[in-house]
Amino acid sequence: MGFKHTDSDLTLTHLDQSGQVRMVDVSDKKRSAREAIASSTVRLSADAYQLLTAQDNAKGEVLNTARIAGIQAAKRCADLIPLCHSLALDYIGIDFELDPTQHSLHIQATCRCSYTTGVEMEAMMAASVAALTIYDMCKAADKGIVIEHTRLLRKSGGKSGVWEAQS
Amino acid sequence: MGFKHTDSDLTLTHLDQSGQVRMVDVSDKKRSAREAIASSTVRLSADAYQLLTAQDNAKGEVLNTARIAGIQAAKRCADLIPLCHSLALDYIGIDFELDPTQHSLHIQATCRCSYTTGVEMEAMMAASVAALTIYDMCKAADKGIVIEHTRLLRKSGGKSGVWEAQS
Amino acid sequence: MGFKHTDSDLTLTHLDQSGQVRMVDVSDKKRSAREAIASSTVRLSADAYQLLTAQDNAKGEVLNTARIAGIQAAKRCADLIPLCHSLALDYIGIDFELDPTQHSLHIQATCRCSYTTGVEMEAMMAASVAALTIYDMCKAADKGIVIEHTRLLRKSGGKSGVWEAQS
Amino acid sequence: MGFKHTDSDLTLTHLDQSGQVRMVDVSDKKRSAREAIASSTVRLSADAYQLLTAQDNAKGEVLNTARIAGIQAAKRCADLIPLCHSLALDYIGIDFELDPTQHSLHIQATCRCSYTTGVEMEAMMAASVAALTIYDMCKAADKGIVIEHTRLLRKSGGKSGVWEAQS
Amino acid sequence: MGFKHTDSDLTLTHLDQSGQVRMVDVSDKKRSAREAIASSTVRLSADAYQLLTAQDNAKGEVLNTARIAGIQAAKRCADLIPLCHSLALDYIGIDFELDPTQHSLHIQATCRCSYTTGVEMEAMMAASVAALTIYDMCKAADKGIVIEHTRLLRKSGGKSGVWEAQS
Amino acid sequence: MGFKHTDSDLTLTHLDQSGQVRMVDVSDKKRSAREAIASSTVRLSADAYQLLTAQDNAKGEVLNTARIAGIQAAKRCADLIPLCHSLALDYIGIDFELDPTQHSLHIQATCRCSYTTGVEMEAMMAASVAALTIYDMCKAADKGIVIEHTRLLRKSGGKSGVWEAQS
Repeated sequence: MGFKHTDSDLTLTHLDQSGQVRMVDVSDKKRSAREAIASSTVRLSADAYQLLTAQDNAKGEVLNTARIAGIQAAKRCADLIPLCHSLALDYIGIDFELDPTQHSLHIQATCRCSYTTGVEMEAMMAASVAALTIYDMCKAADKGIVIEHTRLLRKSGGKSGVWEAQS
Repeated sequence: MGFKHTDSDLTLTHLDQSGQVRMVDVSDKKRSAREAIASSTVRLSADAYQLLTAQDNAKGEVLNTARIAGIQAAKRCADLIPLCHSLALDYIGIDFELDPTQHSLHIQATCRCSYTTGVEMEAMMAASVAALTIYDMCKAADKGIVIEHTRLLRKSGGKSGVWEAQS
Repeated sequence: MGFKHTDSDLTLTHLDQSGQVRMVDVSDKKRSAREAIASSTVRLSADAYQLLTAQDNAKGEVLNTARIAGIQAAKRCADLIPLCHSLALDYIGIDFELDPTQHSLHIQATCRCSYTTGVEMEAMMAASVAALTIYDMCKAADKGIVIEHTRLLRKSGGKSGVWEAQS
Repeated sequence: MGFKHTDSDLTLTHLDQSGQVRMVDVSDKKRSAREAIASSTVRLSADAYQLLTAQDNAKGEVLNTARIAGIQAAKRCADLIPLCHSLALDYIGIDFELDPTQHSLHIQATCRCSYTTGVEMEAMMAASVAALTIYDMCKAADKGIVIEHTRLLRKSGGKSGVWEAQS
Repeated sequence: MGFKHTDSDLTLTHLDQSGQVRMVDVSDKKRSAREAIASSTVRLSADAYQLLTAQDNAKGEVLNTARIAGIQAAKRCADLIPLCHSLALDYIGIDFELDPTQHSLHIQATCRCSYTTGVEMEAMMAASVAALTIYDMCKAADKGIVIEHTRLLRKSGGKSGVWEAQS
Repeated sequence: MGFKHTDSDLTLTHLDQSGQVRMVDVSDKKRSAREAIASSTVRLSADAYQLLTAQDNAKGEVLNTARIAGIQAAKRCADLIPLCHSLALDYIGIDFELDPTQHSLHIQATCRCSYTTGVEMEAMMAASVAALTIYDMCKAADKGIVIEHTRLLRKSGGKSGVWEAQS
C-alpha cells in the first residue's frame, strides 16, 4: 500500500501503487480515542508585543479571536488539506502563553476524536490559523511578524500509539 | 480609528474605540494593484526528504497537491481569518525550491488583486496551507517535520506602498 | 468543568476553568438517539402576506426555497456556530404553517442524530435560515418583516433527557 | 420583471415571469455606497442573564465569540441564502447592549459595501448568527432562551434610498 | 504565457512556463459584461420519468430543489474548481425542459457577470449540480439515470467575444 | 414513507406524505460497508487531446489537479446536493484512462464509507467535478469539450445490496 521507497519501509502513504494521489483507505482501521497536540510560535517586534499585551481588554479580544479562528479551522481541516479525512472532533482547545523576553506568543492546540484516523492535521491546522489570525490583527503595527516552529508535539491513540516530539 | 496605544501611533486596527473587534471599514480606500509575497519552509528528516525527492513522479504529485491546496486556501482566506475582507484575487502562484543540504522545501506564495485592501493574509494563508499539505503527505514517514519561518517577504500597492522583509 | 457561577451549579460550559472558550469535550459522552425541534415565526405586512400566499405556485417556490435553505444550514451549523461540534444528521425536516389572521408564517424545524451531542443548535439554525430566506424573498414587498420567537420547542435524548418549552 | 401580483406593483422579485426562482439580474444596476443595520434581541432567564454578565471576563469571551460568529456569517451570507448575490463587504460591525431589567441582550449589526445590491441580508444574517451563538453558549443554563425581533432597522444607498423601520 | 504546444498557438493556460499549475493572472484584463450558457441532459427510465412528472407538486418540488442547488453551486464554483477565479455573479438562472419522448430532462444554466474573466465554469457547474440533484432525488426509483452532454452552448463578452457550440 | 407512485412501489423518497422535500430519516438504518463507483467521459477535440497528452509533465499536472478537485468535491457533496446526508468517507480514489482513438478521457471515481447511507452521490460528484476541472484546464484550447455519460457503474452495501449498471 503506497509508493515504495527503495531502501526502507517508508512510504508516501497518499500515493497508490501507480504513484498517484488518493485518500488512504481507512475502512479496516479501528476506532480508538485519539489526541494530537501541535504548537506554533508567533514572534513579534518589541512594539507590536507591547501593543498586544499592554491592555487586558485588547489582549483578550485578540486572543479570543485567534482561538475562535483556530477552533473553526480545525473543524474545516478536511476542506483545506486535500487528502485529509472528514471527521467529527470531540474536543478542540487552544492555549496561549506569552513570552515577554522573546516578544513571542506560544500557541498550543489540542484536538481529540474517537475515530479511525488521527487528528494530527486538525491540531496543526488549528495552531497555524490561530497564528495567522494573530498576524492579521497585529500586522498594521508590524508586518515583519514571523510564525515559527509549527509542529506536532504529541499524538496518542491508533495502531502507532504515542509519539512525542524531541524537544 | 482603532484602539490607541499609549506611547505611539501604533494601533490594533481591528479594535474599535471601545476596544472591541470589528472589520476595518475600507469604504473610503482606493482600489489599486496590490501584490503580496509570503514564504514558509518545511524542514524534513533526511529520510523523509529522500522519500519526497527520490522519484520525479512522487515529487510532482506531492508538490502539485500542495500547490492546489495553497491556491484553494488563498481563495478562502476570509472564511478562515475572522476580520479579513472577502476579495477576488487576480492571481495566485506557488513556487517550491528544494534545499538538499538542509532537507528542506522552501515555499513562496504570490497573490495579486486590484482592490481596496492588501492581500498579505491571502499570501500567508497560501504558504501555510501548502506547507501543512506537505506535512500531511509526508507525516507517515516523519511526524517530526517542522514548518519554519512563515512570513511576509514583500508587499506593494495601497497607501503604504512597498514593504520588504529584512532578510 | 466550566466557569463556576457563584450561587448555583449553572455554568457557561464553553468556558474552561481559566475562563476561556474551548469546545466542550464529548469524548466520554454516550451516543444516543437525539432529536430537537425549534420554531420561528415570520410576521409580514398584509400586502406581503397576500403576495406570498395568493398563488399556489409562488407560495410553493418560496417555501421550497426556504426549506432547502434551512436544511442546508442545519448541515453547516458547526461552520457557523464557533463552539458547535460537527456531526452527521440523520434527519432534517422543515414544516410551514400559514396564519392568515396574523399574516404570519410559522416555521418548525426538526433534526435528529445518533451521536454524543444534542442537535438543538442545528434545529435553531434551520429555523433561523429558513426564516431569513422568507425575508429575502419577500423583502422587495416589505422591508419591515420581523422574525419573532426563534426558540427551542423540545429536545430529547442524551443524559438530560426530554426538555419542553413552556408555551 | 418578477411574478406580478394582481392588485398592486408588489412582486416577489426572485420569481421570473413563469413563476420560478432565479437570482435577480443586477447587471444594469449602479454601484453605490450601501449600508444596512439589523437588530435582534436575546431574552434570557434571570439566572442565565446573571451568569452571562456577572463576571467581566466571561461576558467578554461570550460576546467576542458571538461577534466573530456574526461577522463570519455576514461574509458567508450568499452561501446560506439561496438567491443572495455574493459580494465583498467593506465593513461589518456588531454592537451589544445589555438590558438588566429585561434580562436581555440587544444585538445591532451594521454592514457596508460599494456594490450593485444592498446588504440587508448580510446584516440580518450577522444579527441572527450572533444571537444563535449567544443561545449556544448559554443553553446549558437555560434552554428556554428566545431570540426576538430580528429585523431590519435601516438601509441606505441604491435606487430606493433610505428606509427606516417604524419603531 | 502557458505551456507551449509544439505545432500551434494552443496552450494549457493554467500551466506556467515551467509547466506547473497556477491561477492565470487577470490583473490586466478589462472588465466587461460576460454571459455563459451551459446545458446538460438527464436521461431517466420510463418509470422514473413518469414518477418525476406525473404530479405537478412532486415535479415542482424536485425541479425547484435542483434549481436552488445549481444556483448555489454556481456561486461556489471557485471553491470547487481549483484554478477558477472567485467572482461575484450578476445573474444565475436555470431552466428545465421535459422531453417525454426521450424520458429526458434538459437543463440550461445561464450566468452573467461584469468582470475580468468569463463565467463558463460557473454555468457548467450550475448545470452539472442541478443534474446531479435530479439524479439524487430520483435514484431510489432508478439508479441507472445517466447525465449526458454537459457542455457550453454559448459565451459572450471578453476579448474573445462570442462563441457558440455547433449543434 | 415518500410520495406514492400510482402503479408501483416507486417513490420519490425525498418527498414526504404531503409531497414536500425533507431529508430521508436514516435513524433506523444499519451501518454497513458501502462502496460506489461512478464514471464520466470527457470528449475533447483532436487538438485539445494532443495538447493534454503530448507531454508527460503537462498531463500529470492536469490530471493531478482534476483528481484533487474530485476528491475535495466528494468530501463536500452534502454541501452541494440539498438532501444528501453529511458523512465521513473512508476512501476516495479517482482513476483516469486515456482513449486516443476517441480523443477522450475516461474518469472513474470510487468512494467507500461505513455508514447508514450509500455513497452514490459522492462518487457521482467526484467524477463530475474531476470532469469539470479537465474542462476548465483545457477550455482555452477547446470550448466545445463535452462531458458525456456521467453515471453510476456499481454500488454495494446497505439493504439493497449490489447494483451494477447494464453496459
